[in-house]
Amino acid sequence: MSAQPGTKLYEGKAKILYATEDPDILLAVYKDDATAFNAQKRGTIAGKGSINCLISRYLFEQLEAVGIPTHYLDCPEPAQMRVKALTIVPLEVIVRNRAAGSLCQQTGLPLGAVLDPPLVEFCYKNDDLGDPLLTEGRLLAMELATAEQVADITALARAINRELTAFFDRCNITLVDFKVEFGRDRDGRIILGDEISPDTCRLWDNAIADPDGRVLDKDRFRRDLGEVEAAYQRVLEVVTAAVQ
Amino acid sequence: MSAQPGTKLYEGKAKILYATEDPDILLAVYKDDATAFNAQKRGTIAGKGSINCLISRYLFEQLEAVGIPTHYLDCPEPAQMRVKALTIVPLEVIVRNRAAGSLCQQTGLPLGAVLDPPLVEFCYKNDDLGDPLLTEGRLLAMELATAEQVADITALARAINRELTAFFDRCNITLVDFKVEFGRDRDGRIILGDEISPDTCRLWDNAIADPDGRVLDKDRFRRDLGEVEAAYQRVLEVVTAAVQ
Repeated sequence: MSAQPGTKLYEGKAKILYATEDPDILLAVYKDDATAFNAQKRGTIAGKGSINCLISRYLFEQLEAVGIPTHYLDCPEPAQMRVKALTIVPLEVIVRNRAAGSLCQQTGLPLGAVLDPPLVEFCYKNDDLGDPLLTEGRLLAMELATAEQVADITALARAINRELTAFFDRCNITLVDFKVEFGRDRDGRIILGDEISPDTCRLWDNAIADPDGRVLDKDRFRRDLGEVEAAYQRVLEVVTAAVQ
Repeated sequence: MSAQPGTKLYEGKAKILYATEDPDILLAVYKDDATAFNAQKRGTIAGKGSINCLISRYLFEQLEAVGIPTHYLDCPEPAQMRVKALTIVPLEVIVRNRAAGSLCQQTGLPLGAVLDPPLVEFCYKNDDLGDPLLTEGRLLAMELATAEQVADITALARAINRELTAFFDRCNITLVDFKVEFGRDRDGRIILGDEISPDTCRLWDNAIADPDGRVLDKDRFRRDLGEVEAAYQRVLEVVTAAVQ
C-alpha cells in the first residue's frame, strides 16, 4: 500500500522526504538545518537548502551523463527535488582522495596526505551507534549488503569519484573526500541516492594556501571557521559556471 | 649494535622483554599485572604470569606441530619464555568466531552470534589512538604492512584459528575470539609472536549455560565477574590435560 501524496515519509538532518502521486517517486525537500558530530552540534546555514539542492542537481546530471544511475529526476521548485523511490542500503560510503577529518583522528595520518589509490570506506548508518566504521567482513556478517552489492557499490563509488574529481579540478577545487548513499530500485539495481553538496563533500579552494581559508564545505560550520554561507554560495557559483 | 644481556628492551602491559647473550633471542617475562580498556582499568591477577606463560607455551607447541611458525623457543623458568627476536608488525590481529566485546558494541550484533566465516580484523597497535579498528585500505595507506604481508597474516590467522578452535573443542571450551600479533624475522618471514592466553582469548566453558558463569578469560577482570584467578587456573588445567 502506498502513502497518500504529501505524506511525510522520513525527516533526516538535512532533508525531508514526502510521498507523491506516483509510488515510485518521492519529493525531497532540502533544509537549511545543519548538524555535525552526530547531531551534537546544531545550527542553520541560511540558503543551504536551495544551494545544496541545485549543486546536487548539477552533479547528478554530470554523473547521469556518463552513465552512473542516480535517483535524481527534476527540481520542481528551489530546494525541492523529485527522486526515484529506493530501498536505502544502510551504509555511508566514503571516498577519500586525501586524509581529513575522522581518518586523521583515527589513524594519525596527516591532514591532506594523498591517498593513492583513493580509499572507499563503509560506515553503518546508525545514529545510536554513532555511524561506526565497518570492515567488509563486519558489513557481510551484519547482512547489510551482499558481497556482490559491496563490489557493485565500490565500483560505482570509484567511478563517481573519478567524475567528480575531474569536474572539481575544472573548478580549481580539490575534492578531498565525500560521502554518498545508495539504494536499490524495484529491480534490485544499485542507484546513487541522497545528495552531493558542501554538506557531504570536503572541498578545498586551490587558489588559497591557508588550510582554514581554503575550506569550502561543512567543515566551516563544524569547526566554527565563519563565512559558512559565503562558502556554500561560492561552490554553487563555480559549479554553475562549470556546467554551462 | 646489540643491547647488553639483561637489558630491559620493552615493558608492555603484560610482559617485559629482556636482551640475552644472543641478539636473535629475547627473554619474555610474563607479569601478574592486568589492564583493560586501554589501561584505564588496572589490577593484578595472582599467578597470571606463570599461568599465561605455560598456556602460551603449550599452545605455541601445538601450532608449531602443524607447521605454524611461532617465536617460542623454551621456558627456562616459570613465567619466563625465551623467544625469537622479531620486528613487530604494529597490528593487533583479531579473529572472531562469535560476536563479543567491542564487535557487539560497535555493530549491534548480539553477544554470541556465530560468525561464518570467522572475521579476521586488524587494529592499529597504538595506545594514544586507542588501538583503532583498521580497514585493509587504511592499513595499506598507513604503510603498516604490504598487501602481501596482509594476505600472509590473514592466512596464518585463519590457520591458527582452525587449530586453536579444534584444540579448545577437545577441552569442551568455545574459542569465541582471540588477538594475536605477528613479527618478521631477519629473512622477512611472518612469525606468530606475543602470547595466547586467557588475557588474549575469549573462552567459554561449554558445560555452563549462564552467560557470565561460562566466562574463563579476562572478561572476568574487565567486567568484575569475580573468580578471576580460578578461571585462569582452570584453563591451565584443561589445556595441560589436553596436551598430555
